[in-house]
Amino acid sequence: MIYLDNAATTAPDAEAVKAAMRFLGEEFYNPSALYRGSFEVHRKLEGARRALLSHIADAAKFGLVFTSCGSEADNQAIFSGARRGNFVTTEGEHAAVYRAAEELSRRGVEVRFAKLDRCGRVDTEDLLRLVDGQTSLVSVIHVNNETGAVNDVAAIAAAVKKKSPRALFHSDGVQAFGKIPFRLTADIDFYAVSAHKIGGVRGVGGLFYRKGAPLHPLIFGGGQEGGLRSGTENTFGIFQFEEAAKRKFAALSEDFARASRCRRILEEGLDKDLFAVLSPEDGSPYILSVSARGLRGEVLLHMLDDNGVLVGTGSACSSKNRYSRVILACGADEATADGVLRLSLSKATTEEECREAAAVVTRCARELRERMR
Amino acid sequence: MIYLDNAATTAPDAEAVKAAMRFLGEEFYNPSALYRGSFEVHRKLEGARRALLSHIADAAKFGLVFTSCGSEADNQAIFSGARRGNFVTTEGEHAAVYRAAEELSRRGVEVRFAKLDRCGRVDTEDLLRLVDGQTSLVSVIHVNNETGAVNDVAAIAAAVKKKSPRALFHSDGVQAFGKIPFRLTADIDFYAVSAHKIGGVRGVGGLFYRKGAPLHPLIFGGGQEGGLRSGTENTFGIFQFEEAAKRKFAALSEDFARASRCRRILEEGLDKDLFAVLSPEDGSPYILSVSARGLRGEVLLHMLDDNGVLVGTGSACSSKNRYSRVILACGADEATADGVLRLSLSKATTEEECREAAAVVTRCARELRERMR
Repeated sequence: MIYLDNAATTAPDAEAVKAAMRFLGEEFYNPSALYRGSFEVHRKLEGARRALLSHIADAAKFGLVFTSCGSEADNQAIFSGARRGNFVTTEGEHAAVYRAAEELSRRGVEVRFAKLDRCGRVDTEDLLRLVDGQTSLVSVIHVNNETGAVNDVAAIAAAVKKKSPRALFHSDGVQAFGKIPFRLTADIDFYAVSAHKIGGVRGVGGLFYRKGAPLHPLIFGGGQEGGLRSGTENTFGIFQFEEAAKRKFAALSEDFARASRCRRILEEGLDKDLFAVLSPEDGSPYILSVSARGLRGEVLLHMLDDNGVLVGTGSACSSKNRYSRVILACGADEATADGVLRLSLSKATTEEECREAAAVVTRCARELRERMR
Repeated sequence: MIYLDNAATTAPDAEAVKAAMRFLGEEFYNPSALYRGSFEVHRKLEGARRALLSHIADAAKFGLVFTSCGSEADNQAIFSGARRGNFVTTEGEHAAVYRAAEELSRRGVEVRFAKLDRCGRVDTEDLLRLVDGQTSLVSVIHVNNETGAVNDVAAIAAAVKKKSPRALFHSDGVQAFGKIPFRLTADIDFYAVSAHKIGGVRGVGGLFYRKGAPLHPLIFGGGQEGGLRSGTENTFGIFQFEEAAKRKFAALSEDFARASRCRRILEEGLDKDLFAVLSPEDGSPYILSVSARGLRGEVLLHMLDDNGVLVGTGSACSSKNRYSRVILACGADEATADGVLRLSLSKATTEEECREAAAVVTRCARELRERMR
């Protein structure tokens, strides 16, 4: 099997799992308890927080709340930040932001969506036009999870703050964290990440926040995470995340270069007459979105499954909808949106796998096209 | 080490961890993806849901939403159910309900607290007096996490519905699930549970809900869990929970009997002149709350730690507060509340450990009393 659906989830880093197993065994203690063993776990938890912060932020200026997933982190940032006036975001957001925006709308907050270019990047001018003195929060996805388009969120955040200094700025960094060279700037108030996109296990995410930014709990209770996220800490998941992130960040540039080569091989191996590339040239090397216009991506996906290649048709989360909202927002027609395949890589993907996968994808698409004649 | 803080967290069931490891390995697929491997994981996820439902509910009448913890499940029930009028609860609730009630109050919902008896059981008459036609939700903890007092939530729910048929009924079942014989009745709309109190791993909880009860998401996004809880499913945690619960429920009566014997040994082994028992005779056999009046529970806890016995002083979640809100609500004075120790058992606790622990606790308390003279 060649697994090219790493944007949906990646295989947990086995070494990191092994290293964290002790928190399911002899170090299972509740870090909020008062005996030495639990205090030791608490101390290690704070170490994990510092280590994760160090990868993308200045720990003097930013904090990190552990959540149960990227979606929770996005929701917490949005429901914390957008309590009045209007919320400005983009048509290219992950469902965790988009559906939270719909909820904001039901709660009486005005929601404004900025347009995308053909590759899924936000039209920054359009976004800035939507920001005004009543804007409480702006949210821009860092790496588009469907096309891999990268938004320069540091520059966009700076421009937003220049136009409206009171507005808060959030970014969904789920597909960027550990994959794209990046550090948080003072203009970014919130930044959501997820463990399981970079070899972490599911059940862990994080919300980075600028110290001083108004952050409210989404889940109330025992007061864990400095009162910002209650619930007994998932220590196994957090330590496994720390360890997986450590390896991912240590090899970030090297992995980036290899993923770039892999993506190029994939792209070059696909039949140009059958596939149009939707992803931008300068997007994340981990995501290649293409469309076999006139074919159904879902049918092609099942043929590929039969032939040993696992791919996505867009966001796995929204796989129940026939057309991707984001792909349509890029200006694609329905025939193009219907034929979308998302091939997404991890650090473990090899060039050989990409050559093989490109050949299989091309062969299956040809066969499907033949059948439809 | 004798571990008697199982109400804070229990050691994960090692066999259940082993059985679930494949979901961190070859079956790591995202259950929302469309290829066969992911569909297979999806199918197993639905099997886990049915299996967990079967332990306490009629699956034709109840559903189960997987959450990240018991606190999230409590919060979801409360913020779903208490959107108008008043919210009636008890002074004996876990922080996940109590702090969510405070938030409701800030949102303009009136919150009413029913009194407790000396052991932490709700005064049902007082509770019913507080319920009226404007009551949107009533929440009563099933097993009090500090004293082990058991509320007959089925009877209380029936009485609530009789008085106010429109009111919804929620119960925090975190310390009851898998420990106390119980099945959900038609009067109970929501019931929150947690995996890690019965050998599950942290990062997983569940909210049982009566089909037809108005349940809203707390976390919006990709639409997982039938739209009721977004975020990529924590399959490892869910399967490990299924497996741990299976074993726990299979041995429920046997474990209950053994825990009862253990608790009796503990209680009888403690010096009556030094310790007053706060837990009721007919409470959960898994929790024994006592007070060494005049001594500081926290100091005693550290002495016990030095002597190989790990205990709690109340809810680990709230261990930052000197006096337990719940113990004070039982009518205890501050000197009594200051001296509280919570000894909590699991199915793995042995009679021998309890004999030994009682001797150590008594010895340490005597020594501390001596020192204070």
